[in-house]
Amino acid sequence: MSEWGYVIGEEDLLPLSLGCAVLGTGGGGNPYLGMLRTRELIRAGAQVRIIPFDALDDTATVYALGSIGAPVVGVEKIKRGDECLHALRALERTTGRRADALISEEIGGSNGIEPIAIAAQAGLPVLDGDGMGRAFPEVQMTTFFIYGQACSPAAVADDKGNVVTFDPVDTMYRLEALARAVTVQMGGSAGMCTAPMGMAFIRRAALPGTVTQALRIGRAIVDARATRADVLERLLVVADATLLFTGRVTAVVREMKGGFSVGMAMIAGNGAYAGCTARIAIQNENLVLWVDDAVMACVPDLIMMVEHETGEPITTELVKYGLPVAVIGLPAHDLLRTAQALDVVGPQAFGYAGIDYDTHRL
Amino acid sequence: MSEWGYVIGEEDLLPLSLGCAVLGTGGGGNPYLGMLRTRELIRAGAQVRIIPFDALDDTATVYALGSIGAPVVGVEKIKRGDECLHALRALERTTGRRADALISEEIGGSNGIEPIAIAAQAGLPVLDGDGMGRAFPEVQMTTFFIYGQACSPAAVADDKGNVVTFDPVDTMYRLEALARAVTVQMGGSAGMCTAPMGMAFIRRAALPGTVTQALRIGRAIVDARATRADVLERLLVVADATLLFTGRVTAVVREMKGGFSVGMAMIAGNGAYAGCTARIAIQNENLVLWVDDAVMACVPDLIMMVEHETGEPITTELVKYGLPVAVIGLPAHDLLRTAQALDVVGPQAFGYAGIDYDTHRL
Repeated sequence: MSEWGYVIGEEDLLPLSLGCAVLGTGGGGNPYLGMLRTRELIRAGAQVRIIPFDALDDTATVYALGSIGAPVVGVEKIKRGDECLHALRALERTTGRRADALISEEIGGSNGIEPIAIAAQAGLPVLDGDGMGRAFPEVQMTTFFIYGQACSPAAVADDKGNVVTFDPVDTMYRLEALARAVTVQMGGSAGMCTAPMGMAFIRRAALPGTVTQALRIGRAIVDARATRADVLERLLVVADATLLFTGRVTAVVREMKGGFSVGMAMIAGNGAYAGCTARIAIQNENLVLWVDDAVMACVPDLIMMVEHETGEPITTELVKYGLPVAVIGLPAHDLLRTAQALDVVGPQAFGYAGIDYDTHRL
Repeated sequence: MSEWGYVIGEEDLLPLSLGCAVLGTGGGGNPYLGMLRTRELIRAGAQVRIIPFDALDDTATVYALGSIGAPVVGVEKIKRGDECLHALRALERTTGRRADALISEEIGGSNGIEPIAIAAQAGLPVLDGDGMGRAFPEVQMTTFFIYGQACSPAAVADDKGNVVTFDPVDTMYRLEALARAVTVQMGGSAGMCTAPMGMAFIRRAALPGTVTQALRIGRAIVDARATRADVLERLLVVADATLLFTGRVTAVVREMKGGFSVGMAMIAGNGAYAGCTARIAIQNENLVLWVDDAVMACVPDLIMMVEHETGEPITTELVKYGLPVAVIGLPAHDLLRTAQALDVVGPQAFGYAGIDYDTHRL
């Protein structure tokens, strides 16, 4: 396997965390702290290889993991760093199946980095892919669950070594409800690992290449800054994204509700968008963009907000009055656009009964 | 073992459930539905033996189990009947230790009957004893946990077969918080089983003879009714209880709060108590009795409300305007009166900072 993929170097971590934050579509938590933890592990000698799906045969066992909780909690409640590892070990014990590789539940935000930090501790490779191609607020919103990953066993662990295992659980929505309630009791943020998957299933259900995609996006931002190039322009090219709006944030309404950051950001347009007003609905992530009350983009497509000058990704817990921003859009992966997927991650799944995805898709 | 103890007969079930309801001190849930379930099992041929602690040697493994949730939920959300069995089986799998006997977490209310219903399904004996000698609202409030039962593994199961296992957990308070949050997600009521205990520990930490005590109290009520004797008088003698108040319920304030029934019942005195007003604070169970604002009794002592004429135990979800009631009191078992126990089940543990147990103990 050593000839497959590439080893993540210390110099890759900042670009990777920037790219993950962009793909976080406002949520998924800020990858900065996870990046620092991973950097310490790599400096201490840990080596993590990012491998393509082809690197493993069908008999290999893969665990998906990531943090669960409201991103805004993660700003003040710092992780210990081994929460997901405890959840993983609990599942390995329960199932008797050791992990051959890890994969991210969601590439967007801190969970794009998390499997790398855990892989560094466990001595495992990380698959170049994930289950969202972005960030989503709920457990069941991965292509893994959408296309048939077992709902159990799954485990949640906190920073004090407490581990809660769900086994059996009847639906992925039940798993979300139970894991969320436990996470709230654990202080609003925890590590989660879901049922083991075989590589044959991963090849069918996972979104390939997203670690590399995040790395490429992050590198474009870093390089453009270094060469004083137009960051936004480079970002649009490298991410193959569409500019949807530019302006200044005029208001943010945000509250903690059932373990989620829920709210709305308002943006007064400038440049080509002067005189227009944009509105972005938030549940951890950016869900819907309206410009002058017309829907411009909606989940599962990616609605990403970056600081206009620097390309710095703006997460929902950091968006604030006065920020000059650009809103850019990216079509969701085809695996997120099937009828089966839209039931779970389309506008209706988030309570927007009146928004038809196919009418507004990017 | 077959010479030890006694087999529960169909004719014992009504008295037992009455006695458990009396000892429930207003809470623990109404044992009536569990009684019906157990009767069906016994009619179908199941045989459950109630055995004294002496019947098993120190190497025997005992599991304590019972329902968790607000009693008021149990009125409309009927149990399937195998919730606790699923929780038990999950723990047996996790620990590799099969149960030699079951014991009730709390003899008061529905949990006095629950282990018998589960034992009937599992073919196990039930120890004559429990961990509360009454009912209490929270998981950590058993003499098992107070005197050192391991906080994990523990498991909670619902009526749909979902099982959540807590392993490891750092404190019994954490277990309560996590199990409660899961129970609320499971619809407000679930079955729970806690970590296996050895018989040597049970002999030291459990309250002995409480199944038989409940049976004796229930039989006294049934017999007195049948012979038209004064039920209250017989009840006081058999239970060795003190009459604390008689009157009519004038108001009940009750709400669901964090998975508990919390509230207050007001009683206008009659007979020897005419002109006086009693007030009972409730968190699932009756916690404190005031008469004219003076504390007459408080946890962990038992404050029991029965219908004056019939001796029918009145649970907090059934207490209502106009009911003629007698309030009777019983001293808590010595194991609940140590400083160690009062930290967990004394007035302070329920937020009554100003009530000194030793001043007001029965």
